[in-house]
Amino acid sequence: MAVSGRHIHVARSVLDRLFGEGFQLTKLRDLGQPGEFASEQTVTVVGRSMKTLECVRVLGPLRSYTQVELSGTDAIRLGIDPPVRRSGDLIDSESVTVAGPCGSVHLKASAIMATRHLHMAERDAREYGVVDGDRVRIRFTGDRALVFENVLVRVGKNAALELHLDTDDANAAGVRLPMTVKILR
Amino acid sequence: MAVSGRHIHVARSVLDRLFGEGFQLTKLRDLGQPGEFASEQTVTVVGRSMKTLECVRVLGPLRSYTQVELSGTDAIRLGIDPPVRRSGDLIDSESVTVAGPCGSVHLKASAIMATRHLHMAERDAREYGVVDGDRVRIRFTGDRALVFENVLVRVGKNAALELHLDTDDANAAGVRLPMTVKILR
Repeated sequence: MAVSGRHIHVARSVLDRLFGEGFQLTKLRDLGQPGEFASEQTVTVVGRSMKTLECVRVLGPLRSYTQVELSGTDAIRLGIDPPVRRSGDLIDSESVTVAGPCGSVHLKASAIMATRHLHMAERDAREYGVVDGDRVRIRFTGDRALVFENVLVRVGKNAALELHLDTDDANAAGVRLPMTVKILR
Repeated sequence: MAVSGRHIHVARSVLDRLFGEGFQLTKLRDLGQPGEFASEQTVTVVGRSMKTLECVRVLGPLRSYTQVELSGTDAIRLGIDPPVRRSGDLIDSESVTVAGPCGSVHLKASAIMATRHLHMAERDAREYGVVDGDRVRIRFTGDRALVFENVLVRVGKNAALELHLDTDDANAAGVRLPMTVKILR
């Protein structure tokens, strides 16, 4: 499993404005899903409260849309109320300002709290008896034991089997990586 | 229910060193449990990481021990690893430095993450069929639906019926106060 801290996916046009025309992200490290990476670049996010989140990691590769993924704790600090959504579902989501070294952009309808989700390949889906879009429950044990409901199954051709939680969920469950968990149906 | 942000309970000797000899806490507002209050006073907490949490609320009345209650998110920022404990159970808990306007104290074995707990009076306990020290499960619905396990029942003579969650748990569950929840047995 993986714990997703606050981060931003960017489109070409936004990267140009934040880091300069034609800027290329440089890789810091690979992420669990094939081709995805944390870049060395970070931005500052400013919310309606005028408070900021600094050092928000830019993930690559570039996407066709720009999306800021925050935890509930982050949202409270920024004074915004982002919806819980799956990646790319940005209609009526929240607005924030993002600043880079070369400029800033006010991003309308770009900030969400990512739905808890479980990446898996088609073979894994068959094994677990689920299909893309299903919701499963996942149980964590220990002092902070809990059961997450509404965990979205995302089946992808080349996906690696990996649960993605945000930092609030991970800290509520007392996650210490690496950790294996139990999927309930 | 109530969401407990990071806070500190203080003993007389610690209050004296932080705020001056004989200092009296002044009430900001009453809390849900009879006699408990948020004071107007705050302190700064410094962790092993040398990072700080500012404006940490001092709760009253004074206690016989000093205890800092943090979320997992706070603990990561401070670079410490506090255990999940019920109030007052501080053996081998974490150490932090606390600074007030008149001085600072390095508090050994004083920082915990509070166990999720449910305050109730004896009459409530009889009604729910539980006794002090029991663990119950509590379910939250909505986009961020989950079931908290290991919720400690704390029965007190004058206790008000109230679930206490820290900010990580509350944000993981998408809590918006006021909210009523379902106790599972």
